[in-house]
Amino acid sequence: MCGIFGIYSPTKNNIVKKVYYGLYALQHRGQEGAGIAVGNGKNIGSYKGVGLVPEVFTNKELQNLYGHIGIGHVRYSTTGGNNIDNCQPFVVNSSFGNFAISHNGDIVNSALLRKELEKNGHIFISTTDSEVIAQLLVRELLKTDDIVQAMKNVSEKLNGAYSMLIVYNDMMIAVRDPKGFKPLCMGMKNGEIYFSSESCALDIVDVPLERDIKAGEMIVVKGNSVESYDLPNKSEKASTCMFEYVYFARPDSTIDGISVHEVRRNIGKILAKENKTDADVVSPVPDSGILFSQGYTEEAGIPYKEVLIKNRYIGRTFILPTQEERDLAVRLKLNPVKDMIKDKKIILIDDSIVRGTTSKKIVTMVKKTGAKEIHFKIGSPKIVSPCFYGIDMARKDELIASTRTDKEIAESIHADSVQYLSIEGLLEAIGRKDLCLACLNGEYPTDVSCKLCKNNKNN
Amino acid sequence: MCGIFGIYSPTKNNIVKKVYYGLYALQHRGQEGAGIAVGNGKNIGSYKGVGLVPEVFTNKELQNLYGHIGIGHVRYSTTGGNNIDNCQPFVVNSSFGNFAISHNGDIVNSALLRKELEKNGHIFISTTDSEVIAQLLVRELLKTDDIVQAMKNVSEKLNGAYSMLIVYNDMMIAVRDPKGFKPLCMGMKNGEIYFSSESCALDIVDVPLERDIKAGEMIVVKGNSVESYDLPNKSEKASTCMFEYVYFARPDSTIDGISVHEVRRNIGKILAKENKTDADVVSPVPDSGILFSQGYTEEAGIPYKEVLIKNRYIGRTFILPTQEERDLAVRLKLNPVKDMIKDKKIILIDDSIVRGTTSKKIVTMVKKTGAKEIHFKIGSPKIVSPCFYGIDMARKDELIASTRTDKEIAESIHADSVQYLSIEGLLEAIGRKDLCLACLNGEYPTDVSCKLCKNNKNN
Amino acid sequence: MCGIFGIYSPTKNNIVKKVYYGLYALQHRGQEGAGIAVGNGKNIGSYKGVGLVPEVFTNKELQNLYGHIGIGHVRYSTTGGNNIDNCQPFVVNSSFGNFAISHNGDIVNSALLRKELEKNGHIFISTTDSEVIAQLLVRELLKTDDIVQAMKNVSEKLNGAYSMLIVYNDMMIAVRDPKGFKPLCMGMKNGEIYFSSESCALDIVDVPLERDIKAGEMIVVKGNSVESYDLPNKSEKASTCMFEYVYFARPDSTIDGISVHEVRRNIGKILAKENKTDADVVSPVPDSGILFSQGYTEEAGIPYKEVLIKNRYIGRTFILPTQEERDLAVRLKLNPVKDMIKDKKIILIDDSIVRGTTSKKIVTMVKKTGAKEIHFKIGSPKIVSPCFYGIDMARKDELIASTRTDKEIAESIHADSVQYLSIEGLLEAIGRKDLCLACLNGEYPTDVSCKLCKNNKNN
Amino acid sequence: MCGIFGIYSPTKNNIVKKVYYGLYALQHRGQEGAGIAVGNGKNIGSYKGVGLVPEVFTNKELQNLYGHIGIGHVRYSTTGGNNIDNCQPFVVNSSFGNFAISHNGDIVNSALLRKELEKNGHIFISTTDSEVIAQLLVRELLKTDDIVQAMKNVSEKLNGAYSMLIVYNDMMIAVRDPKGFKPLCMGMKNGEIYFSSESCALDIVDVPLERDIKAGEMIVVKGNSVESYDLPNKSEKASTCMFEYVYFARPDSTIDGISVHEVRRNIGKILAKENKTDADVVSPVPDSGILFSQGYTEEAGIPYKEVLIKNRYIGRTFILPTQEERDLAVRLKLNPVKDMIKDKKIILIDDSIVRGTTSKKIVTMVKKTGAKEIHFKIGSPKIVSPCFYGIDMARKDELIASTRTDKEIAESIHADSVQYLSIEGLLEAIGRKDLCLACLNGEYPTDVSCKLCKNNKNN
Repeated sequence: MCGIFGIYSPTKNNIVKKVYYGLYALQHRGQEGAGIAVGNGKNIGSYKGVGLVPEVFTNKELQNLYGHIGIGHVRYSTTGGNNIDNCQPFVVNSSFGNFAISHNGDIVNSALLRKELEKNGHIFISTTDSEVIAQLLVRELLKTDDIVQAMKNVSEKLNGAYSMLIVYNDMMIAVRDPKGFKPLCMGMKNGEIYFSSESCALDIVDVPLERDIKAGEMIVVKGNSVESYDLPNKSEKASTCMFEYVYFARPDSTIDGISVHEVRRNIGKILAKENKTDADVVSPVPDSGILFSQGYTEEAGIPYKEVLIKNRYIGRTFILPTQEERDLAVRLKLNPVKDMIKDKKIILIDDSIVRGTTSKKIVTMVKKTGAKEIHFKIGSPKIVSPCFYGIDMARKDELIASTRTDKEIAESIHADSVQYLSIEGLLEAIGRKDLCLACLNGEYPTDVSCKLCKNNKNN
Repeated sequence: MCGIFGIYSPTKNNIVKKVYYGLYALQHRGQEGAGIAVGNGKNIGSYKGVGLVPEVFTNKELQNLYGHIGIGHVRYSTTGGNNIDNCQPFVVNSSFGNFAISHNGDIVNSALLRKELEKNGHIFISTTDSEVIAQLLVRELLKTDDIVQAMKNVSEKLNGAYSMLIVYNDMMIAVRDPKGFKPLCMGMKNGEIYFSSESCALDIVDVPLERDIKAGEMIVVKGNSVESYDLPNKSEKASTCMFEYVYFARPDSTIDGISVHEVRRNIGKILAKENKTDADVVSPVPDSGILFSQGYTEEAGIPYKEVLIKNRYIGRTFILPTQEERDLAVRLKLNPVKDMIKDKKIILIDDSIVRGTTSKKIVTMVKKTGAKEIHFKIGSPKIVSPCFYGIDMARKDELIASTRTDKEIAESIHADSVQYLSIEGLLEAIGRKDLCLACLNGEYPTDVSCKLCKNNKNN
Repeated sequence: MCGIFGIYSPTKNNIVKKVYYGLYALQHRGQEGAGIAVGNGKNIGSYKGVGLVPEVFTNKELQNLYGHIGIGHVRYSTTGGNNIDNCQPFVVNSSFGNFAISHNGDIVNSALLRKELEKNGHIFISTTDSEVIAQLLVRELLKTDDIVQAMKNVSEKLNGAYSMLIVYNDMMIAVRDPKGFKPLCMGMKNGEIYFSSESCALDIVDVPLERDIKAGEMIVVKGNSVESYDLPNKSEKASTCMFEYVYFARPDSTIDGISVHEVRRNIGKILAKENKTDADVVSPVPDSGILFSQGYTEEAGIPYKEVLIKNRYIGRTFILPTQEERDLAVRLKLNPVKDMIKDKKIILIDDSIVRGTTSKKIVTMVKKTGAKEIHFKIGSPKIVSPCFYGIDMARKDELIASTRTDKEIAESIHADSVQYLSIEGLLEAIGRKDLCLACLNGEYPTDVSCKLCKNNKNN
Repeated sequence: MCGIFGIYSPTKNNIVKKVYYGLYALQHRGQEGAGIAVGNGKNIGSYKGVGLVPEVFTNKELQNLYGHIGIGHVRYSTTGGNNIDNCQPFVVNSSFGNFAISHNGDIVNSALLRKELEKNGHIFISTTDSEVIAQLLVRELLKTDDIVQAMKNVSEKLNGAYSMLIVYNDMMIAVRDPKGFKPLCMGMKNGEIYFSSESCALDIVDVPLERDIKAGEMIVVKGNSVESYDLPNKSEKASTCMFEYVYFARPDSTIDGISVHEVRRNIGKILAKENKTDADVVSPVPDSGILFSQGYTEEAGIPYKEVLIKNRYIGRTFILPTQEERDLAVRLKLNPVKDMIKDKKIILIDDSIVRGTTSKKIVTMVKKTGAKEIHFKIGSPKIVSPCFYGIDMARKDELIASTRTDKEIAESIHADSVQYLSIEGLLEAIGRKDLCLACLNGEYPTDVSCKLCKNNKNN
């Protein structure tokens, strides 16, 4: 995950507030850190911090970021803690120019690239791919003044996912990798150019979506010119991450012309078609199951009711319960509504089964409240292979589920049945074929042999 | 509003964590302050602060609150700022005993009572009704050792709404005023007695709801005894606030045996019955319109879709936009989904029209996104009289709406039509008659002449 | 201890910043809490908090305190922790007027007065003497409109030390108890009247000292009038606390016309006269011993050198060392300078021997650094009786020292000799006879039988 | 400025607390940031932040720093703000090893070195000399495994001041530049090796001073071996910064065998000898003038009295006074004691005249308090040339003073006379000749032509 947002204004210097709003709208893509870098054509100022966008920035920090080219980043990470060094944008001040980089996606061969650079005497402050990209870019800029050529050369070295925004001197550069793994779109208004991970952030700043950046496209904005270039290794066919549609993106975004919320309702309908289940009520596990459930209801004709009420005030500052109190923790987040549940056959829809412990707690709680049957349905297919392009599978632990049958999973979470969406159903729901399905079928769009080998060793 | 929660354990001293969880579940009743007081039979320790429950309390503060009788309070107020003095529980240490009071509701004659007490040399630190009640209680305790008699005497002096929890030496006392304006219920588990403003908080700590406290009932818990007393001025008929069902309470609560979420779905259905509207889609203004809309859909057969996406990360630390950016503010909270809206006739359902400025912004935004028609429907009747029992009408400004016709209101918010629920519809939806409808029809369950007179003067 | 400061301006509303500066200058009198109350003739606004003056107040809090009558307080206390309730000023809003009270000193009979008030149905929020005084004042104001008479009546009930500032409606009232235990002085400038615990705070706001308030005097400021009244129980002879001169007050203050720094230099001279000691160098234990040492040098002709360097950055946020590291703690604060100490006979002068553990650590450290002899001298006589007027003897533990001979004390702290100032020397150094010497000779200026009895029981 | 401290323990892993104490003792060398890096032979953990040592570190941060080789840094800087990137130690994790660098001093040719490295494709995150040194070191380590040789090669490239501590894998390396501009000393205890900018920090952790590191010396500690190497460009004669003795270092330190406090007392004595002034009292401007004044008194026989009382509670959180209140600001820090000043001829001694505005305010204030004459004396010679080795002259603005005669300066600050120490007097006071006096006489110990040229252009 991670979200990026950028603005180039030919005339105004006070764009930072809009970058802030854009990041606010992308907060769902990363809650662990945020940063903004703003350039005025010469210098680049930046500020970043650990936490949510409104926690990191106050008016004071924003006021110091003055210029007409700005990019921002929200960070999603596995390694926690107070690690500001790994927050983006990554800013470099060098004798041949200043630049700032924000990117979304994982570079498959970054460890190799890093090692190679270190052999040549380069040192790294952070453990981010951004720094690897920055160092490669600097090396290319030493060979050529032409940023377009330099960026093309860098992209030939990179294997993996990278939607990327760069402030370089008086230019803004947007790049989407040759496979188009991660989304990136462009808006225009009053001569200003906007880039965003998702279109919902353009809506929020009231800027019309111009178009999505194509897989393997680079756009360079300078003054009043907006030029598009093909990356050298541009691919025939994109391989966009299907999970963006299933649960990463906000439902009010469209990605590559396809409405996210529509995909999610479709998924619900197809789930209903693929397996008829007799039930009294369809209910989401809020919030992620809501649109699947509404689609399901539409197809199956079973009433939609929210039998689990979510506490909207659960934040990150919550005091962790003691061991004995741990069972309360699920209830604090989700409370079952007795009179909707009592003696009912219930279809519960969620986006995934993570490890199984939370699903088991939810199912047990709803059963204990009086449900007659619980049928647990998942709005995505089973995951059978790790992702190397930016989704933390180790965290989601979905691979564990892949080794069991539906029946075994149902038993382990105490549900009466479990149903996953089929891969065909997923493709139908999204309505495009040029997707990355590597985690579902093991077919990787790029060479991941180094990773797979390492992965097997680790297991 | 405000929420209260209490626990009496005959045997355990570590109840404070559960009071904390209970308050967490009642957070929707007040976000401006929180406090907990815990007694061990002799001394009462307390801690309170400004902010949300998890902001006020860390493990450190909770660890200092050690004892077997605990009450907590979440505060909702009009007067903002860092006013810890007005937070509850209100704790008194005196030579004839220690007590702590938390209450929910407004005392109509508190200014008079306060003046009378001041004439007798009493001074007040805070401007809360809790302190008035505390001072009255102390005066009665000087006359009699019997806390039950003392509390009865106090209640005879009080005119208004008060659901109240008191720690007094080694006792817990729960009182609901003679009209039962505000909810209060009781749970029992393993010999422990729980009290809560709403049943959802009992669910959260996994305690079964025993029953609601009756209007005019006082319950005294001590050791293993739980005794019920009638207040002297107990009323024939309760007058419970209908707004608890309409939007205060959490949908997973039941109040006086009636399920809140069911009332809200009923309201949606009745709205649909009372005025047939031709439309393509029914959508809530999230979150408060969700259940109304689902009920409406069920009755009207028009598809339910959420055309406005709410940003879940909007918190209180948000940087206020400048004058020019103010229009962005609504979008930051609610983003319209274009492809659901374009060329559609849309029914939007909300809980109320406040001042009209926000409703106008929402309607305008949805129209601008391409809606053909917008029919704005409200899940409650029009408010025509002020409330003196605890709802801040000045804040909600609903009275303004009352001076205009539906058509005028529709015009002012740029909607194609506006529909309010009828009073009869409301009664049908709730399914009980013993409600306070004063704000809807001007019939006050208690003498409010002093207030009305003052109110007229002020206007 | 504790410090108070107040301003009455007939014409200006923006006095709060000067109250803040005044408190800043009195910070040495109390570092545990601070508060300011400002009245505009009608309402009184206030803000208080735990910590140092600049920690409690930011511009935001000060800007909210708008009016022409202001008082402030810095708090010194034994009971630590987050106890805002016990911070001053104590503010009361009542039907017969608003007032705010700040005071310095302990009321000997406050427990009795409190019990009596409780019997009459009064309740107490805090455990402060200020609240007792406030409740008494309210009772008197019920009997008479005349604040002067009311205050006189209250003062007849009070036994103990109280220098006190009161904002009452559009008046400022300053009171110094009949014995004048604690200092209180008045400044005037441009028609504005200032009151302060010490004259140094008047210097800081550039206001000339007009005079000290007399023991048993009450001053009422209103509009342009400044009137002085005698309290009914005004005493023939004052009994001002001698410790104000010895170590409480700032050296740049004068108290009752006597310069504090001069008293301290005198003490050093008299110490030198009372006991000739052969030594190579006179050194203070910084900071409190500095002036004593300089006086000693002047008299004895032995060179003054600071052989212990104080770390100026030691604050309250310091991480407590583990048991093993505890010995480092003294060094972190005070480092001995080797080449000044090696083979030297050293006179070390401090203001008191507290418990003896710190003194022992210092002496041992200096010895280990190579001192030949160390003669420890104390700028005050031995304490033999507890203080009931505001000095926390339990905290200072000086009574422990009182049970041993000088020789025994010297042995226990590893010094070659110990010398205390004589009582006669102290009187000579201060140059006035009307002092409270109760802690030195057991002769209490007011009836403390209730306390002494309790004290003996406790021991 | 800046201060560095390091520990190598062959056996213990819990050294971080002592590094913390060491930094605490060096806090006077830098208050703007602090950092610690601790290695265990393999990995290096680090934490740094903006603020004072106890503000940056709590027990939590210290507990995470576990290992046997630790270095720390306190930062003094001109560029303010939240710039964690520029805090030290600078930590590098690379494929050929991890290292952390802390240094004190300015590299004259760092801009050139940086440009050269950038030409070779290196990028810089920070603007610190530490990063330049780190990058150079990495380049050398690519050529040779031998850290000693690598460090020698780096030192040949560096022109300027650098006392430096490095953690490199399982080694600790200490380096003092060939001119020995900045101090660096070594302590030993129980087989552990300590390094510190000043000896006072060794005292604080109770470790005996072994010796000062020599100019041009490198010490490598590994296991139980401590080896000393000469840097290739080691100089015949050191050029240690004379300001360390005059006001940077703590008085309880010795630098290169010379006691700092003794130098300062000598300065006072020589000031008295160089210009006999008739006066009643000698007083410091606290705190920096104290030792000069005591030396002056000893020589001149004029009594020493502190006529200005410093407020010990003035911290960094102080609310800035408004324009009108600005004159109060000096008083808040320093209050003149009237009865010491009235009608007296006063010698005031300070360490420097900065810009003149503060000195003028102090002199005016003391005059206004009643002084008959004021003679302002400075414990150092006039500065006539900029420093390029680590002292921020722009900040101190001492060059401004250099363009005027003593008489002109006296007039501008309203003093009756002004006296600076002579250069000969300074050399006599310190008692060594191998000092850098560049700022006093323009004779730079290294080639600074690039800087001087740039400096002239800028002016």
